Amino acid sequence: MAEIIRTNLGLSSGRLLQFFRDGEPHTKAELANLTGLARSTVSLRLDPLLALGIIGPMTDATSTGGRPSARLHLKDDAFVVGAVSFGATHAQASLADLSGKILVSIEAKRQISDGPEVCLRWMTSELKYLLAGLGIQEDRLLVIGIGIPGPVEHTTGRPANPPIMPGWDAFDIPERVNREIQAKVLVDNEVNMMALGERFINFPEVENLIFLKAATGIGSGIIAGGMLQRGAQGTAGDIGHVRTLVGTDVACHCGNFGCLEAIAGAPAIIRRVNEAGLPIRNTSDLIDATRRSKVEAIRAVRQAGRDIGEVLSTCVSLLNPEIIVIGGSLSSAGEHLIAGVREVVYGRSTPLASENLTIVQSRDSKGEIVGAAVMAIDYALDDATIDQMLEAM
Amino acid sequence: MAEIIRTNLGLSSGRLLQFFRDGEPHTKAELANLTGLARSTVSLRLDPLLALGIIGPMTDATSTGGRPSARLHLKDDAFVVGAVSFGATHAQASLADLSGKILVSIEAKRQISDGPEVCLRWMTSELKYLLAGLGIQEDRLLVIGIGIPGPVEHTTGRPANPPIMPGWDAFDIPERVNREIQAKVLVDNEVNMMALGERFINFPEVENLIFLKAATGIGSGIIAGGMLQRGAQGTAGDIGHVRTLVGTDVACHCGNFGCLEAIAGAPAIIRRVNEAGLPIRNTSDLIDATRRSKVEAIRAVRQAGRDIGEVLSTCVSLLNPEIIVIGGSLSSAGEHLIAGVREVVYGRSTPLASENLTIVQSRDSKGEIVGAAVMAIDYALDDATIDQMLEAM
Repeated sequence: MAEIIRTNLGLSSGRLLQFFRDGEPHTKAELANLTGLARSTVSLRLDPLLALGIIGPMTDATSTGGRPSARLHLKDDAFVVGAVSFGATHAQASLADLSGKILVSIEAKRQISDGPEVCLRWMTSELKYLLAGLGIQEDRLLVIGIGIPGPVEHTTGRPANPPIMPGWDAFDIPERVNREIQAKVLVDNEVNMMALGERFINFPEVENLIFLKAATGIGSGIIAGGMLQRGAQGTAGDIGHVRTLVGTDVACHCGNFGCLEAIAGAPAIIRRVNEAGLPIRNTSDLIDATRRSKVEAIRAVRQAGRDIGEVLSTCVSLLNPEIIVIGGSLSSAGEHLIAGVREVVYGRSTPLASENLTIVQSRDSKGEIVGAAVMAIDYALDDATIDQMLEAM
Repeated sequence: MAEIIRTNLGLSSGRLLQFFRDGEPHTKAELANLTGLARSTVSLRLDPLLALGIIGPMTDATSTGGRPSARLHLKDDAFVVGAVSFGATHAQASLADLSGKILVSIEAKRQISDGPEVCLRWMTSELKYLLAGLGIQEDRLLVIGIGIPGPVEHTTGRPANPPIMPGWDAFDIPERVNREIQAKVLVDNEVNMMALGERFINFPEVENLIFLKAATGIGSGIIAGGMLQRGAQGTAGDIGHVRTLVGTDVACHCGNFGCLEAIAGAPAIIRRVNEAGLPIRNTSDLIDATRRSKVEAIRAVRQAGRDIGEVLSTCVSLLNPEIIVIGGSLSSAGEHLIAGVREVVYGRSTPLASENLTIVQSRDSKGEIVGAAVMAIDYALDDATIDQMLEAM
């Protein structure tokens, strides 16, 4: 047998649909060419997608005849997903189309500490309100993706001992939401959402990416082999509690010593700047001080970058990513944090692992909400889900 | 729309084939039940697989009628794959059936330093000889999986600066093999093969597993989200060059300082045992000394376990595996190495990440060759590959 040509192109309707996810129109002839399928087979597989209304002919303004265009595209507006992010003191609920475009959003001051009943009731009522505003039927909302500021058991949608979320531990978020809206509910922690969003917006071709959030806490979202990695209990990416080389006697709130978060999180940096004689109170003072070129602040932020870089260089050895993105409030400290990270990672990693490695600052404050939408869309448009929908028709 | 039920069960022929990979027979009725597909759809999808000969009816010895059994199974003997491992001074070439069973093997003393021409010519001629012995046509050999003792760019099958493989750097292994045998050739490093093999043999349900090989060098194979992770340049799993907390002034052959391999690899342990006053020359002396309960040896091995555990606890935070398997010649030192690993990993990891974490000694010396077979079979039976084969019929 001659060598099998592997193209990763499968044949089911759901898998053909994946071609439309770039937002471009495709003709049947073009798909037949791309896949090597017979044109009649392509038709056979596309017909149910047309019937479902998930793809449709382009409306061609210049066409005068009655014949519909041969160019088909993903009908972004056929279905929508919900994308929600809860922060400590702030929340956002959005609707996105199937291409990942955020259609409409509501932002509000909301305390996560108000507990799940209050927060989720707010969320469902806002999503219904947004749907009504766009004139979209509730049964067109396929999936709701939710990011929360704490660890989650992703398979069940239950938070797992989240430190800043009283009342949320083990709460069945999907069950509560489904009492008011019938849609699949997926929950994950905010840093995983930021990783998915950053990749979707800025690095769609990248299969191996690490997103690090540096703020009061330090966390990461790991995309490896093209997939967000959650691990066995959903705790993957927990970089804040990796032990660093320096400061192994520094106590962390987790009960261990020498955790990265205890050494390079915002409170530790602020303490160090104070000790150096510059009085600042919070992260925003700190950012301010670096912008005013205060050497005490710059030095402390740069050292935090080096400490983060030490742990990231381990990530580079283990996972060989192409891109590391640094986000979170500390990343606003100009280039000082990233400079420290780069100094250590490039000094420490093997040439092969670092020759094509890029370390950049996150540019997207919208990453988290887009990530929640991407998580929802990936589920909604997964070929297995689509094939199931077609079977159920 | 009601919640979509996600079962990960797709509809193409290639995806239906995945059901047969457990080796059990299935009837069409049963598959219709499992998938929710109409029975006629199941038939439609299975027919090409029957025509290809990759599945077939069970031969039922008790049946007396002329009607073939309704029970279909994967015809293990329809096709075979090649599985090859090259060590520094030893090589093995095998044929495996599509269930992963090794059918026949040849082992030989072979120096990898003889270079690719000599080694690969040996390999192709042995594979042809094994095929002939089993009476299998060469065009039934679908894929050859090869494990080598060095880093490989998996996408091209070219070794990347392998330290103990003179003449192999950037050598196009698939091209050379294809001059003599037409089959897809996949190449990876031996530790990745050990990870795949160990999982296949002992932990088939596990999606997140780390295999660590401790010998002269230290390496790891990472399975995350069910997939072997290779990273952007194929260097993922390079745990031997992660910096440890201790001995940051110890020079490593890679040019850096404080690498795990320089501190906990066999040469470092042997040196430490010698310094403690017990004269030993090599790893086998070291294992011997631990078995004879020599305290100098036990102490040094246990400390190496702790140093390895330090880096593994970082892996646990980042990847949240269910299983860590310790293999390689040092793992034969009874429980002393593993005890050191466990001491640090369980002491260091967060409760959620370690509550279901198991750390075990590798039990399979055959892991590497089985892993090479698994890599080949996974490729051969991938639904995309199968769908392509069917299209080409």
